[in-house]
Amino acid sequence: MPTLSPLAPTSYPTLPLIDGVRISALPCGIRYSGRKDLMLMEFIEGTTVAGVFTTSKTASAPVLRSKQHLAGGTARALLVNSGNSNAFTGQAGEMAVSTTLGRVAQLVGCEPEECFVASTGVIGEPLPYEKIMDALPQAYQSLESDSWRGAAEAIMTTDTFPKLTTRTATIGDTRVTINGIAKGSGMIAPDMATMLAFIATDAAIPSETLQQMLSELNEQSFNSITVDSDTSTSDTVLVFATGTAKNNLNDSLDDFKIALQSLLLELAHQIVRDGEGATKFVTVRVDGAESDQAAKRIGMTIANSPLIKTAIAGQDPNWGRVVMAVGKSGEKADRDALKIWFGGTLVAQNGQVHPEYQELVVANYMKREEIEIRVDIGVGHGHATVWTCDFTEQYIRINADYRS
Amino acid sequence: MPTLSPLAPTSYPTLPLIDGVRISALPCGIRYSGRKDLMLMEFIEGTTVAGVFTTSKTASAPVLRSKQHLAGGTARALLVNSGNSNAFTGQAGEMAVSTTLGRVAQLVGCEPEECFVASTGVIGEPLPYEKIMDALPQAYQSLESDSWRGAAEAIMTTDTFPKLTTRTATIGDTRVTINGIAKGSGMIAPDMATMLAFIATDAAIPSETLQQMLSELNEQSFNSITVDSDTSTSDTVLVFATGTAKNNLNDSLDDFKIALQSLLLELAHQIVRDGEGATKFVTVRVDGAESDQAAKRIGMTIANSPLIKTAIAGQDPNWGRVVMAVGKSGEKADRDALKIWFGGTLVAQNGQVHPEYQELVVANYMKREEIEIRVDIGVGHGHATVWTCDFTEQYIRINADYRS
Repeated sequence: MPTLSPLAPTSYPTLPLIDGVRISALPCGIRYSGRKDLMLMEFIEGTTVAGVFTTSKTASAPVLRSKQHLAGGTARALLVNSGNSNAFTGQAGEMAVSTTLGRVAQLVGCEPEECFVASTGVIGEPLPYEKIMDALPQAYQSLESDSWRGAAEAIMTTDTFPKLTTRTATIGDTRVTINGIAKGSGMIAPDMATMLAFIATDAAIPSETLQQMLSELNEQSFNSITVDSDTSTSDTVLVFATGTAKNNLNDSLDDFKIALQSLLLELAHQIVRDGEGATKFVTVRVDGAESDQAAKRIGMTIANSPLIKTAIAGQDPNWGRVVMAVGKSGEKADRDALKIWFGGTLVAQNGQVHPEYQELVVANYMKREEIEIRVDIGVGHGHATVWTCDFTEQYIRINADYRS
Repeated sequence: MPTLSPLAPTSYPTLPLIDGVRISALPCGIRYSGRKDLMLMEFIEGTTVAGVFTTSKTASAPVLRSKQHLAGGTARALLVNSGNSNAFTGQAGEMAVSTTLGRVAQLVGCEPEECFVASTGVIGEPLPYEKIMDALPQAYQSLESDSWRGAAEAIMTTDTFPKLTTRTATIGDTRVTINGIAKGSGMIAPDMATMLAFIATDAAIPSETLQQMLSELNEQSFNSITVDSDTSTSDTVLVFATGTAKNNLNDSLDDFKIALQSLLLELAHQIVRDGEGATKFVTVRVDGAESDQAAKRIGMTIANSPLIKTAIAGQDPNWGRVVMAVGKSGEKADRDALKIWFGGTLVAQNGQVHPEYQELVVANYMKREEIEIRVDIGVGHGHATVWTCDFTEQYIRINADYRS
């Protein structure tokens, strides 16, 4: 068993029920023995759905299928397995998706096009989908309303802790609930680099509206985190809205949107906190860039720099490497307008180190578990915040170990 | 002292003289005590020059000045120090360049605009240029024709071996010589991430022709290697042609170009072989991409992937991660047309693992010191080859260590 991340939460919330959602989670022996690796969610009729997926050109069979099914806008079931990503598995992979979703549709009593699917685990090995087929009747029979914790555990691969959280919001006079679970990239066994997140709410929201909201919020949450800059073939985020709260469809979604944003951000941060070998949670804030897009690219260049991430692991306030990363991003920058802070300390400005900079003060700050690096590019009003973790020897050990 | 890279050459060539070039290398105490850290080259009147530099938006003062001086097309001197990169040092940094180049021009008897400069080492600390000023008279007096080995040593920061090589070529009936030295990115002490290369030839070549040739060949050599994807603020390649071989300017440069290409490639490979913590030299060949540019971007995505580089360190033929990297590159790809080889073994095709793939055979191949990964994207005729090294725990140790 992998050691629990030092950045793991000290306790886990008990998630409330979402009316219209039933869940089961059980072991079916795909790769891990004696732990849950199959999760089935069933949604009440009328549930709407929105999703965002990996931009990979070699996306997995489940990603391609779920993308297709999104066009219908409604969902009745979600099937997720861990241990095998069913990616780069050719025609056999597509067949596995068709067969399992066909069976799910039969059990739930819906069209296969209303069923969604995600897989996470080893790339390029045929998915032993017979094991899923064998387990599906039991999975269906054991559907319950309060299995959120079990669901969060079943989608883990080598995550060191389950990721789950909840929010409430009001739409008009109606109180609604949002639950979410996620898995991140703990890649103890190779190839298991994937982030998945599944969110359900009892709010009634048309699928187009939900999709627009998710696409926008995803940019500032899951698309603003990075552990090692690599892109999975399986990344999937799905939001299901059962509508059982029966809110008025004309009421403002402002409060709901704020709650959803907060929930997505917490799940995204939990993924960073479970990054392989992570010992520091790092926030990178970029202001004063030419545009928000430029700011994000600069932020990601900083957050993905192996030299900066190793310096943070070594508790070294190595601002010279931040200068390097800003220069490397390709975005407009001006050496003499650039300002860099570590925590509250202004380290560099006017093209040189700040005259009152005391390395000892900042070196002390770097000993913390949560580090903030802030840069002001000084050429515009673009802003972005991204999150990452440090880069430790443990990361290399985890990922260099031969699959065994 | 850092341990010698396991990929270091077993012997070093003795470089021939280049008529019209004199060199001195000596210690002036910028950062390291008791080792050479200052190098002066003097070129005969009529020497032409070409150069390529970092694309960083936060380029160092020496880079900005050398770029300016390139406009003149002629060179009489080159001054290089190690230990301090004079980057992000504001007005003081520009002053240091003006002062030292002014003195060099005075000693050599030329214009400051004919003098070139490069610095490599710590970012953001004022360059103690008085030490250079004090050493310059002695540097000038000790200029000799056969100090190439000393020059290669003086520009090292934390490289574990000096990088130098030579080629001959014929232009018409005239035999010409090309010598080159380089330094790479051995970043034992933080911030010392820079590649420098200086090449001199006795060929007579107009600066415009030389520049065109260098820009083209640089793309396939120094711009096709990566150690950790980070871009230095100081990268500099300069080629000086003294013209003392007196070749006819109308003769074909084809043979010269081939020799120069071979020399640049060898220096580039030596830099990879001295990558921090490297234990494997990795060639990534990409064929069948939409264009050469697309092929290079795919190759660089593979070569920069921490997941692939750690797998190689672990001697794991993890082709699933190669699929991931191709998908992530953003270039046109088709899962079912993609082919992947490790060494001579076809590992994946038709969207899945090759039916006769034997992991044991490829796992054995991965134990070698030189690894080739080849992918055929199957969508066009674009080709590129790039080179990198593996990513080991030693890299993290080297770069996380606090500056001490």
